[in-house]
Amino acid sequence: MAEVVIFGAAGYSGLELIRRLATHPNAQLVGASSDRYAETPVASLVANFAGELAFQPHVKVLAETKAGQLAFLATPAQTAAELAPTLLERGLKVVDLSGGHRLAPELFPQWYGFEHPHPDTLAKAQYGLPELLPLHQADQVQIVANPGCYATASILAVGPLLKAGLLKEDAPIILDGKSGVTGAGRALKDNLLFNEVAESVRPYKVAGHQHTPEIEIALQRLAGKNDCAPVLFTAHLIPMRRGLIVSAYLQVKAETTSESIQEAYQDSFKDTPLVRFLGETPPETGRQNHTNTASVSATLDPRTQTVAAFAAIDNLGKGAAGQAIQNFNALFNYPATAGLL
Amino acid sequence: MAEVVIFGAAGYSGLELIRRLATHPNAQLVGASSDRYAETPVASLVANFAGELAFQPHVKVLAETKAGQLAFLATPAQTAAELAPTLLERGLKVVDLSGGHRLAPELFPQWYGFEHPHPDTLAKAQYGLPELLPLHQADQVQIVANPGCYATASILAVGPLLKAGLLKEDAPIILDGKSGVTGAGRALKDNLLFNEVAESVRPYKVAGHQHTPEIEIALQRLAGKNDCAPVLFTAHLIPMRRGLIVSAYLQVKAETTSESIQEAYQDSFKDTPLVRFLGETPPETGRQNHTNTASVSATLDPRTQTVAAFAAIDNLGKGAAGQAIQNFNALFNYPATAGLL
Amino acid sequence: MAEVVIFGAAGYSGLELIRRLATHPNAQLVGASSDRYAETPVASLVANFAGELAFQPHVKVLAETKAGQLAFLATPAQTAAELAPTLLERGLKVVDLSGGHRLAPELFPQWYGFEHPHPDTLAKAQYGLPELLPLHQADQVQIVANPGCYATASILAVGPLLKAGLLKEDAPIILDGKSGVTGAGRALKDNLLFNEVAESVRPYKVAGHQHTPEIEIALQRLAGKNDCAPVLFTAHLIPMRRGLIVSAYLQVKAETTSESIQEAYQDSFKDTPLVRFLGETPPETGRQNHTNTASVSATLDPRTQTVAAFAAIDNLGKGAAGQAIQNFNALFNYPATAGLL
Amino acid sequence: MAEVVIFGAAGYSGLELIRRLATHPNAQLVGASSDRYAETPVASLVANFAGELAFQPHVKVLAETKAGQLAFLATPAQTAAELAPTLLERGLKVVDLSGGHRLAPELFPQWYGFEHPHPDTLAKAQYGLPELLPLHQADQVQIVANPGCYATASILAVGPLLKAGLLKEDAPIILDGKSGVTGAGRALKDNLLFNEVAESVRPYKVAGHQHTPEIEIALQRLAGKNDCAPVLFTAHLIPMRRGLIVSAYLQVKAETTSESIQEAYQDSFKDTPLVRFLGETPPETGRQNHTNTASVSATLDPRTQTVAAFAAIDNLGKGAAGQAIQNFNALFNYPATAGLL
Repeated sequence: MAEVVIFGAAGYSGLELIRRLATHPNAQLVGASSDRYAETPVASLVANFAGELAFQPHVKVLAETKAGQLAFLATPAQTAAELAPTLLERGLKVVDLSGGHRLAPELFPQWYGFEHPHPDTLAKAQYGLPELLPLHQADQVQIVANPGCYATASILAVGPLLKAGLLKEDAPIILDGKSGVTGAGRALKDNLLFNEVAESVRPYKVAGHQHTPEIEIALQRLAGKNDCAPVLFTAHLIPMRRGLIVSAYLQVKAETTSESIQEAYQDSFKDTPLVRFLGETPPETGRQNHTNTASVSATLDPRTQTVAAFAAIDNLGKGAAGQAIQNFNALFNYPATAGLL
Repeated sequence: MAEVVIFGAAGYSGLELIRRLATHPNAQLVGASSDRYAETPVASLVANFAGELAFQPHVKVLAETKAGQLAFLATPAQTAAELAPTLLERGLKVVDLSGGHRLAPELFPQWYGFEHPHPDTLAKAQYGLPELLPLHQADQVQIVANPGCYATASILAVGPLLKAGLLKEDAPIILDGKSGVTGAGRALKDNLLFNEVAESVRPYKVAGHQHTPEIEIALQRLAGKNDCAPVLFTAHLIPMRRGLIVSAYLQVKAETTSESIQEAYQDSFKDTPLVRFLGETPPETGRQNHTNTASVSATLDPRTQTVAAFAAIDNLGKGAAGQAIQNFNALFNYPATAGLL
Repeated sequence: MAEVVIFGAAGYSGLELIRRLATHPNAQLVGASSDRYAETPVASLVANFAGELAFQPHVKVLAETKAGQLAFLATPAQTAAELAPTLLERGLKVVDLSGGHRLAPELFPQWYGFEHPHPDTLAKAQYGLPELLPLHQADQVQIVANPGCYATASILAVGPLLKAGLLKEDAPIILDGKSGVTGAGRALKDNLLFNEVAESVRPYKVAGHQHTPEIEIALQRLAGKNDCAPVLFTAHLIPMRRGLIVSAYLQVKAETTSESIQEAYQDSFKDTPLVRFLGETPPETGRQNHTNTASVSATLDPRTQTVAAFAAIDNLGKGAAGQAIQNFNALFNYPATAGLL
Repeated sequence: MAEVVIFGAAGYSGLELIRRLATHPNAQLVGASSDRYAETPVASLVANFAGELAFQPHVKVLAETKAGQLAFLATPAQTAAELAPTLLERGLKVVDLSGGHRLAPELFPQWYGFEHPHPDTLAKAQYGLPELLPLHQADQVQIVANPGCYATASILAVGPLLKAGLLKEDAPIILDGKSGVTGAGRALKDNLLFNEVAESVRPYKVAGHQHTPEIEIALQRLAGKNDCAPVLFTAHLIPMRRGLIVSAYLQVKAETTSESIQEAYQDSFKDTPLVRFLGETPPETGRQNHTNTASVSATLDPRTQTVAAFAAIDNLGKGAAGQAIQNFNALFNYPATAGLL
């Protein structure tokens, strides 16, 4: 049994973490930070949470942390980047759900709009996408960069073809992402009002989404020696609360057959209880909601020698809290799917 | 003033036609066919329709047609293909909103699932997308193939770059379409129930949508002598009633600048009251609903030398009834936007 | 042709006014106030508006008003109450869409939370619900209190039974209101975010909604000498953008038959082109959207000797802008439905 | 550990039962009937179900039932009424989620449209709403009539005032129900299509819903010697997938205070882990979704001496499958909330 604390516990990802930890056999939530909801009982926001724990101000939760605990960071990226060194010094392990530890330091100003405050801590962070990029020597890892929601779906959709060396190396990787509103976090913005979102689709951050370099770095690792083409990622806001799908359009080498494509995905996802490959049947986002799973499909279009691959997840499940718990399980050597099925 | 009849008048496109014709200064609706709603007053289904006209069975409306009238076909494609020759013989002009006259006859079995019954009539049909592929010698045209909803948005998004010769010729044209449920017509299907559609996104007809060859033919015409690359089009069902956007990912030639891209779109859409170019600001589908307009944007991603272009329409407006009325106006030499603003 | 100005022109009701006035044969919009959107062309927010007019700051629009014009007030109630006397002094007529002139002055602190600043002006205001409580000597009226959205539907649902003297006098009038989010105005509030509104129904202002006394006063006028029972009104937020229905539960006198109830409604709504009585078929809100009409039904439940009556409207149409234009038409003696069908 | 079978297992209520039973410590699902999905693995429709069980045709599941098992009936009411005697003869206990055993036999033709085929079995059925009308001598009960979704919320909203004797006896009980589409079952009907449901509210079965007599019978039992007034219940379809609220308008005796009303509800719901009383804060349906709980509020309006009480549930949780499992727990003497928190 591990003691865990959550920073930023009353945001969408934080609340989902609480929901999952409530039924996790090896985790006990002992601290939940939220300045806004300080003193509010956790049970009043999370129906399945039993116990007396209340949200507490950030500084108080920090002061009460102890060595050996696990801290989930569900705060904005800059807050996470500033907080992590203190937690490591106090002897905690950290799983950062924000973007605070996913990129090299020199990329932060362009993509996140701030100078990374602790490049040394950043250097210690391992990126962890369990099915394709699992932690290396997990029991020695101190801090995990949990993948972004769009990045998770993108890597699952593209990775198998890269691993199998089937992608045309000079063709850009086209990723069209579609997400419900909880992907944007619990912010009070004009363009997230019901009246603005309902009955409309809206592209955003065209060619400039901060998950772009995260995806490229991950795909480059999967490509290995092979060079990986650059990524064009575009996000779209969909009138739904949760759910996310990435539609990937991937030119494959001239000789590639439909069979070899199916095999590439089957190989990647043959022992992955949380990622299912559906063959050529495209996944629906609704089926992933309130789960920790991903569903992936891939179809070769012979007319363009291009694969249309799709990966659907719950942006708050496999795209955030569920995957964070997978990484937690790895850090503590618990069963891979503990608390997740 | 022209007399018009509508076949398939109680489907979504048919009802939208009636709504627009009710305020058209040069059109008078004299017949509206619907076997299902026979004898029902038109006004009971269309709030802004004044007059006593009732829906009538298909055969009755057909029997009462007269030379000089205009017939809108809002029926399934096969019905339209079977009906058209009779109407032309009786001296009517025809605007076919279905797919019944958009492709060469040899393509029908693969993409529409039936052998075209009247290739001679098909040979007479002109495809009409007023802003980019207007009718040639419109006053002599007998039958117009009105573009499909996805095709309309796709051609508007891609066409200007083809006309300007900026597209890389060997790179496939990637089109990711997203549409509300009325795009699927008024069918009673399990997967169009509220409970199945809400809170979910679902790709469909992956690499096999019947608008694919229609788009390719139109783009080839715009490319002129230049060869046009093949198209990969994929449709997605979005939890909304109406609205459609196509996200186009288009590799451009090495030297192409952002400025030349903007110019290409500005040139194409400088005198088009129903199509607006928004520069790099992506359009939202919601803003097009209940209009006859399209909004288009284009952004060059220098990292991949690829343009992300977007075209948003109301699938029942510019994507169906609105464009059909543009073609009607052209056939009868009425002002281009009569009844449409 | 009358010149009109709108104060608060960029809120939901203001924008709907612009939309309708754009096709009104007797009105010309010459001023539109919005501090937030000052200098923005009106056409950029309202698709069907032609012309160069831009929104202007409140004070500038006020300074340019002229005698003989009509001012629509689509501001918050307190702003409207403060603004009206100046406009009357400058010789304009006023239609106030807010709650600024609907109640006696002594009711404002309790129901609107402010002391009415100009009781003298308030005394001049006439309440105008054209079908049941039309303006008296309309050509001499200077200021009209346009009914609230919930009040409009409530009065239409209950009024005919009161006029016919069929209601049990000592039984409370139970009104259950259900509205889409635009009924709450264009405010940036946590509880109007898509994620909070979608997939949920929520009662609000239980037994305390400010339309309660407005409804009571109107119903008392319809009851005439008969005493009218007090009203219990409760509002519910529904996950939709627009549309409103009031379900009224009304105990009728012991001898009342179903036929006499139907007659009461038929009598009230026999010559009302914008209000349709559907007999016992309940109305749907969706059918009223983007119209200026109301639909009403009434069914007697013999087991409880209670009528379940329903009135559905577009909260921004008959519930706001549409009705305001009805009152404008009356003030200037234009045809009753000019610009409304 | 009890073996359970579900008839009608692939409808909305059936699937919810499977989801809950998958984590129930004392239940093992051994049979799931669905003619339509025969041979389909249960796990393919219910993400959290582990094991090889597949849906089987109705007759096959029936043939394999054994004494000592528990059968949940999630079929249409008439099917359930026909099936129950056979199951009882074979020695199973039955929890019927349909309306097949909720009324006296003479009421079936009027409210359910069929003659009850087995009045003897019907006479054995006990109605079970655990918080207010728990099973009597539960270990000897053979067949339980599980309350309807609207009935559950209605009884929870009204019951405490009846038990406390605070209701005016001659005033009708007004119940305004609002439900998402899954309340209507998984039927393929025109009026359940996304395009018909979204952006609209629609009353249905005005003064004629089949839950009306069920509510009256339950309330009469709670009223005891006091006479209970008749019920006027009206249902409304709301554009959401799940969730249900009943707004109850209840005239109370002249001397009744707000305090005594609050006490009545607190008394009824002081030891009910699945039903929470929120005082005067109205519940939201969204908060109940995917739970087995109900939330109730009550506010006295002194102007009308009427209480506005609200009860919100997940129509598939506390309104169907969750409550069925409460009854199952009672029959087998398992902890009251086993499998439900």
